[in-house]
Amino acid sequence: MSQSTEQKFMNLLKEQSSYEEAIGLMAWDMRTKAPKKAVETRSEVLGVLSQKVHEIQTSDEMKTCLDDLEGKATNRIVQKAVEEAKETYERTAKIPTSEYKAYVTLQSKAESMWAEAKENNDFKSFQPYLEELVAYNRSFAEYWGYDKHKYDALLHNYEPGVTVEVLEQVFPKVRKSLTELLEQIKQAPVQPDPSLLEGHFPKGMQEGFSYEILHRMGYDFNAGRLDETVHPFAIGLNQNDVRVTTKYDEKDFRTAVFGTIHEGGHALYEQNIDPKLAFTPLATGTSMGIHESQSLFWENFVSRSRPFWENHYELFQNHAPERFEALALDDFYKAVNEVKPSMIRIEADELTYCLHIMVRYELEKALIGGEIEVKDLPKLWNEKMEDYLGVTPANDAEGVLQDIHWSGGDFGYFPSYALGYMYAAQFQYTMKQELDFNEVIQKGNFKQIQGWLTEHIHQFGKMKKPLEILNDVTGEGLNPDYLVTYLTNKYKGIYKF
Amino acid sequence: MSQSTEQKFMNLLKEQSSYEEAIGLMAWDMRTKAPKKAVETRSEVLGVLSQKVHEIQTSDEMKTCLDDLEGKATNRIVQKAVEEAKETYERTAKIPTSEYKAYVTLQSKAESMWAEAKENNDFKSFQPYLEELVAYNRSFAEYWGYDKHKYDALLHNYEPGVTVEVLEQVFPKVRKSLTELLEQIKQAPVQPDPSLLEGHFPKGMQEGFSYEILHRMGYDFNAGRLDETVHPFAIGLNQNDVRVTTKYDEKDFRTAVFGTIHEGGHALYEQNIDPKLAFTPLATGTSMGIHESQSLFWENFVSRSRPFWENHYELFQNHAPERFEALALDDFYKAVNEVKPSMIRIEADELTYCLHIMVRYELEKALIGGEIEVKDLPKLWNEKMEDYLGVTPANDAEGVLQDIHWSGGDFGYFPSYALGYMYAAQFQYTMKQELDFNEVIQKGNFKQIQGWLTEHIHQFGKMKKPLEILNDVTGEGLNPDYLVTYLTNKYKGIYKF
Repeated sequence: MSQSTEQKFMNLLKEQSSYEEAIGLMAWDMRTKAPKKAVETRSEVLGVLSQKVHEIQTSDEMKTCLDDLEGKATNRIVQKAVEEAKETYERTAKIPTSEYKAYVTLQSKAESMWAEAKENNDFKSFQPYLEELVAYNRSFAEYWGYDKHKYDALLHNYEPGVTVEVLEQVFPKVRKSLTELLEQIKQAPVQPDPSLLEGHFPKGMQEGFSYEILHRMGYDFNAGRLDETVHPFAIGLNQNDVRVTTKYDEKDFRTAVFGTIHEGGHALYEQNIDPKLAFTPLATGTSMGIHESQSLFWENFVSRSRPFWENHYELFQNHAPERFEALALDDFYKAVNEVKPSMIRIEADELTYCLHIMVRYELEKALIGGEIEVKDLPKLWNEKMEDYLGVTPANDAEGVLQDIHWSGGDFGYFPSYALGYMYAAQFQYTMKQELDFNEVIQKGNFKQIQGWLTEHIHQFGKMKKPLEILNDVTGEGLNPDYLVTYLTNKYKGIYKF
Repeated sequence: MSQSTEQKFMNLLKEQSSYEEAIGLMAWDMRTKAPKKAVETRSEVLGVLSQKVHEIQTSDEMKTCLDDLEGKATNRIVQKAVEEAKETYERTAKIPTSEYKAYVTLQSKAESMWAEAKENNDFKSFQPYLEELVAYNRSFAEYWGYDKHKYDALLHNYEPGVTVEVLEQVFPKVRKSLTELLEQIKQAPVQPDPSLLEGHFPKGMQEGFSYEILHRMGYDFNAGRLDETVHPFAIGLNQNDVRVTTKYDEKDFRTAVFGTIHEGGHALYEQNIDPKLAFTPLATGTSMGIHESQSLFWENFVSRSRPFWENHYELFQNHAPERFEALALDDFYKAVNEVKPSMIRIEADELTYCLHIMVRYELEKALIGGEIEVKDLPKLWNEKMEDYLGVTPANDAEGVLQDIHWSGGDFGYFPSYALGYMYAAQFQYTMKQELDFNEVIQKGNFKQIQGWLTEHIHQFGKMKKPLEILNDVTGEGLNPDYLVTYLTNKYKGIYKF
């Protein structure tokens, strides 16, 4: 293959990722710094730049490069970039332009209708928009194609390689085990006392702890920064500029402490991708699920563990109200690990979170498959919540309307959250074979953990698919037993059942 | 003219200004928030986006639109946008692409060589780069064309309509008057005591004053924000997102106080441009000089005036160390208006600033005209400094090497600073015919001033050329007498000569 086609291809990718970096900065800015009135024009600018990305991805020039380079790339990075760009080209090309445009308009309308419907607790007003979104996604699934289940075509957008067949081997099992575990916990002799955590936590103190903990995790502040926002996120603009955001709730330190560590986990992934992948679509996390495994690894497996607090409780006390000096580590540890079924996914504990996901997964799978319809959702949602979590939403606002995902047409996204938990548990099990995990954490040697994750996961970016990474690292496929064992042991330790 | 060509043209301009907005945000970010390591990749991304702007400006599509629309636009905004875009197209097209590319490379190399040379006080190492830059600019001037003086072609980039002929009618006169005034001041019976202003000014206090004063000036924080930086600037991303930056020197409050007000003046201009001009090249200040007139108007004519401090000294005292409560307003006012010739332009007072500009203007005009050569600069610089300001640089680092402008090839830029002073003085004179200026300021009714400036200047963006605005507002052309009279009266009041 001539050098010049490859060069042309890499230049196209560089142009694309330049727009994406600009878009990323604008998105970060809009969610952290931008003045209120800037938003309207900024949205138009974002539209123009997003359109350019779309144009490059589907250009004739791109097509020619891809045709010429397929199977003839001079190295593995180019080869993988070709595969990635080809898939984007083909999936995009399969959607008729007019349908795509109508869908984009619908998405933005539906999101604002959802926000209104949620506020007014009025599912009916949102129903027709959700019906349209479902119809489009069913139709996209047909365009894209699938082997066995229509929903597979959508799953592919978030977790390539994971299908309904794969999920059905693990999700029902996880659901059953976790609901049983939840029952044991409810009836356990010891119950943590979360009221011990109440208090007033000045923002400055939380900020101090957040900076320090990110620093200790190995987050590079010369290649990132920490800012405040309403809905926290991490974003990689380029490998040397990966930003974390958090929220300081002065009544509840857990939002910032665990939230910062969670986003820090995402950020460490993006900061440690092989620099050789820069300016290609490979220079980011390989999937939603693997990304979530990294944030959850740090948030739960590290920072909700007892060894972590053995080392860091003093640091926390230094940044907390004085009376925490009298609160015993053990009571603190138990209280931050309370399991309590609630209505709201994003407030859920480590155990019930996956049950929230099961509700959503089962519903959206059936919805895309045509086994149920949008109008059935509110009732089914409440029934499943009762079955799996033992709680019933008082209304649709805290029931079927609670998440933004469906209003943006994001079907197939939810399973990634639960997969993240399972991947993380599998990674931890493997890591424990190689490192004295508890001791490493107890001593705060996070560089060892960070190094291990970089070596096995981070560096590859999108060079490996999610299940490929899982297999390479753990030597096996998706296996929910590790998560169930981890949670069982953890809660047995806390609840003494 | 068919609607569709006009629509096509406006779409091209929208695409261009979308890139420019993204570039602006990246520039702001790099100078305020971006982590250190981000810079390398971000610079490449900036390069890609700047290249896109250049491509649009010089595209065949643009040429066709311009040819079709010339003299046939359906309204004045489109007509002005056509004129603006046509000029950009033509001036850019006149430079051979290979020369332009070589020049861009030279610019970036020369800037870093200049920084090094300044640090090492070594003009000789920078000389060959400066010689090349001058050669390019002489050659660009030939490509662009001019009537009488080669330097006119470069002046046009910053102050269209202003030529050597115009400047020669005013600059020597100003120079003579100001050097005479400086002599009188040096020998005056009363001398301000700047040591009264010494102290430790905690950043938080300066920040508080800066926010409050911007707010009072009418700066809209819902369409802007204030951040810290090393070299303060204001930047308009769009009309509803115009950001101010400042620097807090804890040893000298004047940097932040007058600096914030200066940048606030720039920002008010950009915030108050007619929204109809959005997404066109007309949606910004019309020239460097008019822009500077706005920042200087607020910095000098407003905030260095006595009526201003009569109203705001208490606010300042609230944000300053306790001992300022005992410092009399009159002593404070005199001290912040001390005239003191120094080596460094950016630290100069209101009077000597223009003399610094005269040194630079006379040298760069002669340089471009071929009357002197680069090697002659250090000696000539020092001679002129002695002649006009009575001070001699100890070395080239505080002499000919002090400003960044020439190292970036920016010849023709300096005169705009002095023009800004003159424009501002003329605007103030006119304003005084209509408003009781001192009373308005003394009462802090800045909305009246802001409203007047918006009505006469801001709203037009680039719809009017600088001298056109000057004429429309003041009824006359460039006239340095107003500046000289203003400064003479001001300093007579302070120095009692």
